[in-house]
Amino acid sequence: MTSIDTPAVLVDLNVAERNIRKYQKYCDEHALQLRPHIKTHKLPVLAEYQIAQGAIGITCQKVSEAEAMVAGGDMRDVLITYNILGSEKISKLRSLSERIPLSVVSDNSKVVEDLSKGFADATEPLAVLVECNTGADRCGVSTPTMAAELAVLIESSSGLNFAGLMTYPPTGEAAKVTNWLKEAKEMIKAHGIEVPIISSGGSPDMWNAHEMPLATEYRIGTYVYNDRSLVAREVCEFSDCALTVLATIVSVPSNNRALVDAGSKVLTSDLLGLEGYGHVLGRPDITIDQLSEEHGRLVCDGSIDLEVGQQVRIVPNHACVVSNMLDHVVLMRGNEIEGDEKVAARGKVW
Amino acid sequence: MTSIDTPAVLVDLNVAERNIRKYQKYCDEHALQLRPHIKTHKLPVLAEYQIAQGAIGITCQKVSEAEAMVAGGDMRDVLITYNILGSEKISKLRSLSERIPLSVVSDNSKVVEDLSKGFADATEPLAVLVECNTGADRCGVSTPTMAAELAVLIESSSGLNFAGLMTYPPTGEAAKVTNWLKEAKEMIKAHGIEVPIISSGGSPDMWNAHEMPLATEYRIGTYVYNDRSLVAREVCEFSDCALTVLATIVSVPSNNRALVDAGSKVLTSDLLGLEGYGHVLGRPDITIDQLSEEHGRLVCDGSIDLEVGQQVRIVPNHACVVSNMLDHVVLMRGNEIEGDEKVAARGKVW
Repeated sequence: MTSIDTPAVLVDLNVAERNIRKYQKYCDEHALQLRPHIKTHKLPVLAEYQIAQGAIGITCQKVSEAEAMVAGGDMRDVLITYNILGSEKISKLRSLSERIPLSVVSDNSKVVEDLSKGFADATEPLAVLVECNTGADRCGVSTPTMAAELAVLIESSSGLNFAGLMTYPPTGEAAKVTNWLKEAKEMIKAHGIEVPIISSGGSPDMWNAHEMPLATEYRIGTYVYNDRSLVAREVCEFSDCALTVLATIVSVPSNNRALVDAGSKVLTSDLLGLEGYGHVLGRPDITIDQLSEEHGRLVCDGSIDLEVGQQVRIVPNHACVVSNMLDHVVLMRGNEIEGDEKVAARGKVW
Repeated sequence: MTSIDTPAVLVDLNVAERNIRKYQKYCDEHALQLRPHIKTHKLPVLAEYQIAQGAIGITCQKVSEAEAMVAGGDMRDVLITYNILGSEKISKLRSLSERIPLSVVSDNSKVVEDLSKGFADATEPLAVLVECNTGADRCGVSTPTMAAELAVLIESSSGLNFAGLMTYPPTGEAAKVTNWLKEAKEMIKAHGIEVPIISSGGSPDMWNAHEMPLATEYRIGTYVYNDRSLVAREVCEFSDCALTVLATIVSVPSNNRALVDAGSKVLTSDLLGLEGYGHVLGRPDITIDQLSEEHGRLVCDGSIDLEVGQQVRIVPNHACVVSNMLDHVVLMRGNEIEGDEKVAARGKVW
């Protein structure tokens, strides 16, 4: 890899494509529709591969991400799992809806009212799912009753169409989450409104998605690359990690310490409950105990045994956020370089 | 601010310029040469203001940062405080050195040898400082003896010129650091080599820089914007914080919880020893207790008293890393919008 200037984010397509096929097979076996979240790779080329393998479309978190993905490839169908507010964003959403089948979520009446204003005179109504808080305590209506009330409001709002329920469930709570969603679904049906989609998701619980048969769709992002946090949760192995950071040792100031040229501007400060900021492949004895913006500090109990100028590959704690740090990633197949790829949806926070 | 699409990074030029003038005055009073680190703002327009007020030049951490800054304005003189390795980087460094007075640092013989190869036939020798570890335990030679040995190597290497000593000292250790550097300086002078520059730095200790009169230069980055970490260390007040994140409340799912549309892709996960991910201006009762990529979770003990659609301004824990997240910042003067500014050195990690 001496021809790659470091630090660099490498994506092994062989591994990423294998991860995509493996999880698609799982979803096919369990009759679960897969709608990958593009936040992990932000690359139209990988989204197209996911769709070619059987994904029904993609998930984006922001309107600007959806714009970048739709501009870069054939995304088929897009769900934006976010409360969209403001005339600028809703106007962009409207334009996007004229190009591709689109759905969004809401957990409050203000968002429903604003969306309705923006889509009142649209040719096709906008599909809106109700976001439900089933225990993760981020967004989402708090109770099945509130979910039903919001579903009724959506269905009665001009330009909108109630499309179902969406949740990002807490890990390991399939039974509890199922009860919540089942109750909401029944309450909504009692109003004479169908609930065609129930969308769940999350990488940590990816191999238990079948434990919630009520869900029709599963949204998942990190599975395409995997990362140190998913290895720690025993969801995958390091050999399943498609994204690595290539870094050069720039200093070995003492016997048990070395510095690499990748700091928080590449690896980010995300810990996800772990100790240290990444895993140096082939060196389980090393801890990345400290990051500054442009340095990563590698320490170990014994001799660090690294030389200035040597390269190492690091599996980051959290692959999604690393994808957001650089404008380009280097696509690889094993040790062969395929070329640079622009991260089309990088920095798209609007 | 309803005309600004959120999330947005706002920079109040009135505050930034006041911070620049105030610290320049301090340096002038103590006969300390100021060499601001551009990592905080990454904007040629603010570097030019720093130089106009009296800074002797700028500090960059990477060659690609220096390239972006030199391309964007008149930087006068650039110090790159990094061990530069690899033929691609050294070739870029050589090009840059033909445009502007340039100096770099090294803490090991490998870097010195590679720089010497790259500059052996240069018209002007490259100025190289020795990076010293005076207690921060990142890069830097470990002892004054090693500093002297490396200075001798630099001075005897074709194409290079020993320029002095550089350190990023631990906080509150002025006496200890002074002794370290004094010993190194004397050992180098005993070899008949002058030590024209002694470069120290760091924002947390900025108002104590005069306690180390041995230093000829001071490098400092965060002072231009300040941030929550410097408020916590009592280096400044919130009213001195020039960089804020403008965010919109997108969900108020319960009485004591609200979500904003700025998550770790804007605020970053940097904690710098603090609790929570930022300070909501005017709401000291609120904690930002959790970030996901596109959501920040605001909680408080009492009623959160925020409405969906409302905007808030957040002082981040660490301003430098927030500057690196978006392609543009919004320049302001008080509440007046001056316009968008491209963050020229954003994502420049090479």
